[in-house]
This record gives sequence, structure tokens and C-alpha cells, in this order.
Amino acid sequence: MHYSQESLATLDSRFRAHLINSLSGFKSANLIGTQDSQGQTNLAIVSSVFHLGAHPPLVGMIIRPHSVARHTFENILETKVYTINQVNADIVSQAHQTSARYDKEESEFTMTGLTPETLADFKAPFVAQSHLKYAVQFREHQHLAINGTELVIGEIIDLHVKDGAIQEDGFIDLEALNTVTVSGLDSYHKTQIIERLPYAKKENYRD
Amino acid sequence: MHYSQESLATLDSRFRAHLINSLSGFKSANLIGTQDSQGQTNLAIVSSVFHLGAHPPLVGMIIRPHSVARHTFENILETKVYTINQVNADIVSQAHQTSARYDKEESEFTMTGLTPETLADFKAPFVAQSHLKYAVQFREHQHLAINGTELVIGEIIDLHVKDGAIQEDGFIDLEALNTVTVSGLDSYHKTQIIERLPYAKKENYRD
Repeated sequence: MHYSQESLATLDSRFRAHLINSLSGFKSANLIGTQDSQGQTNLAIVSSVFHLGAHPPLVGMIIRPHSVARHTFENILETKVYTINQVNADIVSQAHQTSARYDKEESEFTMTGLTPETLADFKAPFVAQSHLKYAVQFREHQHLAINGTELVIGEIIDLHVKDGAIQEDGFIDLEALNTVTVSGLDSYHKTQIIERLPYAKKENYRD
Repeated sequence: MHYSQESLATLDSRFRAHLINSLSGFKSANLIGTQDSQGQTNLAIVSSVFHLGAHPPLVGMIIRPHSVARHTFENILETKVYTINQVNADIVSQAHQTSARYDKEESEFTMTGLTPETLADFKAPFVAQSHLKYAVQFREHQHLAINGTELVIGEIIDLHVKDGAIQEDGFIDLEALNTVTVSGLDSYHKTQIIERLPYAKKENYRD
């Protein structure tokens, strides 16, 4: 099956959205918890959270400022903090439902039945049902003029992981946490480990 | 299990790398194919490829310009084109091995046994063994001064997908392609679909 640049451009826009969203491969599934300066909470599922660096511990995500994630972006600029909460198999449908277009005064926590949790007085809500979650200090955003999106970068400042999932070398067993992955716009998947591979060196290749 | 900002900062650097790399959740696994202006090919596994937008069809990735991916970045700046090839379960060990620090004149294709493929005269090599691959025209890069990484943005201009994987609405069944996902620095996973969920609306929430 082959699509040229011209055939991609003439696809029905919904078909193209599904198709192009599938191309990058499997994505992370995370809930972004925020609140405004009056304490009105918001929760939004985001599939574009990515690792940016370990030292300092930085995480990036792409937000469309005029999409349903607009309140998330506004709250981050207002309070400079947010939480990232991994989605597990038990909360997939509630997590997905946070992508509905609720009004600002309708908290997605209330509307979907997920439970806001305050940890260590942090000024953004965590998701009680998530097994891996962390507090993030907003560091900067970059406007990507090429398509009007925003790259939001934050520093991980406080990490909460369910007991037993962190292995001796620091690797976190996401399968022990039931963490899911997303493909396309709306498909949720469990995972099954194939293997962990050793650090790749020129001399140690086993074919 | 709880790590504060202070305890994260004092972790052994290898432990911290494994830990922090696990936090964003599951990642995509892609091979980036490039060549220099003399035709010397390069192939590099990257776990930071992400969907940036469908219209125009844009894809982003994070590259550390002084890492083993340095030749990839140099080749992209030199030729303005690259390919992205999804990693499937049959080529996990070869794909991972491309992360070894080969010299520029040692092509990772030759060193790992993956097969370079030229499609439609595009000036970057595809991976014959990949079932979903696309030609990318470099659009821009942004230096992220916060940690010295580069955000590389490209436009998808030519798409090749194994027959039978594209569904009626444009969704691509990545499981039919055996596409894998990565967690942490070195863990590869197969997936099993839970479900596709309908477009979320305020009024249609089913709990």
C-alpha cells in the first residue's frame, strides 16, 4: 500500500487524521492534572508526553492551545506546575473521556469519576487511581509556528511509584503497573515484554 | 515508593537514566535511515519519534547531537531527507544494535544485517524488513538550550504500509504489522489491544 505526497493531501480529513496519527508508532498514555489560581481542577489525556532528558530530569509534551487541552495549557502558564499520571488498564475509559470538550467549570475529575489527590501540598492534582505519577515544574514552552502547536517542557520534581515496580538498576516495570499504550487516535493496548537488551557495543553483537 | 527532587538529584547516574527514561510511559520504536552526500548510509534506532500534526503531516523527534545519533543529525542537515521505519518483533535485536557507536564509514545496515532499500529514487535508505515506513522531508530543527538536544521536525511525503493493515477509517492496525513498543532504555514489548474507544463527547459517556 503506497501513498504519495499528493494522495496524502487529498485524503478525507478524518481518514487522514487516523492514518497520520498511526505513523509514529505506539504512544504514551498520560493524564495531565492542573488547576487554575482559584483551585478549579482540570484533567486531560495526552498521548504526546515524551522523555527529554535524565539530567536534569525533563519531560516534554505537545499541546494544541486551541484544542480541548486549552485549559491545561492556560493552567500551566498560570500556576507553573502540573502532574503527569500514567494511564493503566483499569482507568482507560475514564481517561479517554477526559478528551470530551467540557467547560472550564466542569472538572474532568468529577465528570469521569477519577479521584483528585493532593500530595505533599503540590498545587496541582494527582490522579489517585494512577500507579506512577509525578509533580512537574514548568520550565518553558516553545511555539512551533509550523503548525501552531506548543512544546511544553517541565522538570520532574517529585515521583510516586507503586511499591515493587522499580528494579535494581532503576528500570521501572511498567507492566507491573498495568500501564497502557495508545496507537492512532483512540486505540488502547496492553503490553507483553519481549526482552530487555544489553547496552549495545560494537564488539558484543550476537546475531 | 517516593523520590523527592533532592533524592532524584543524588541517584547514581545510570540508575537515574533507567528510572527517568521509564517515566514518560511506552515509547515508539523507529529506525531513522539517512545517507551523506557521498551516499554513505546510516541507520539509528530512536525512541523519541512523535506525532506532531496531521495537516500538514508532520513528525518530530529529539536527537542528542553529540550522541551515537550524531551522524543521523549531520546527514539530515546535509541532505534534508530521511526515512522513518517502524521496528517490528522480527528485527528487535538488529534494531537495538544500531545504537552501538559505529564509525561513520561503518554502515549500521552492514553491521546489523538489516537491508537498505531504495524506493522511488528517494535519497535516503529505507529498511526492507520494516512493514511501515515513510519518506520525510526535513522542515526545521530547534535547539533546546535547556539540555542541548535538538527537536527535528519533518514532513511525511511518501508512505509505504504492508497490505491489509489500513482499516476503513484510516486507522492502521500496528499489531497486524508486529510493531513493537519500548520502555525505559532497553525493554521491547509486543502489544495486545484492549479496545478502540469512540470520539469522546460530553453527552455520550458510558461508565
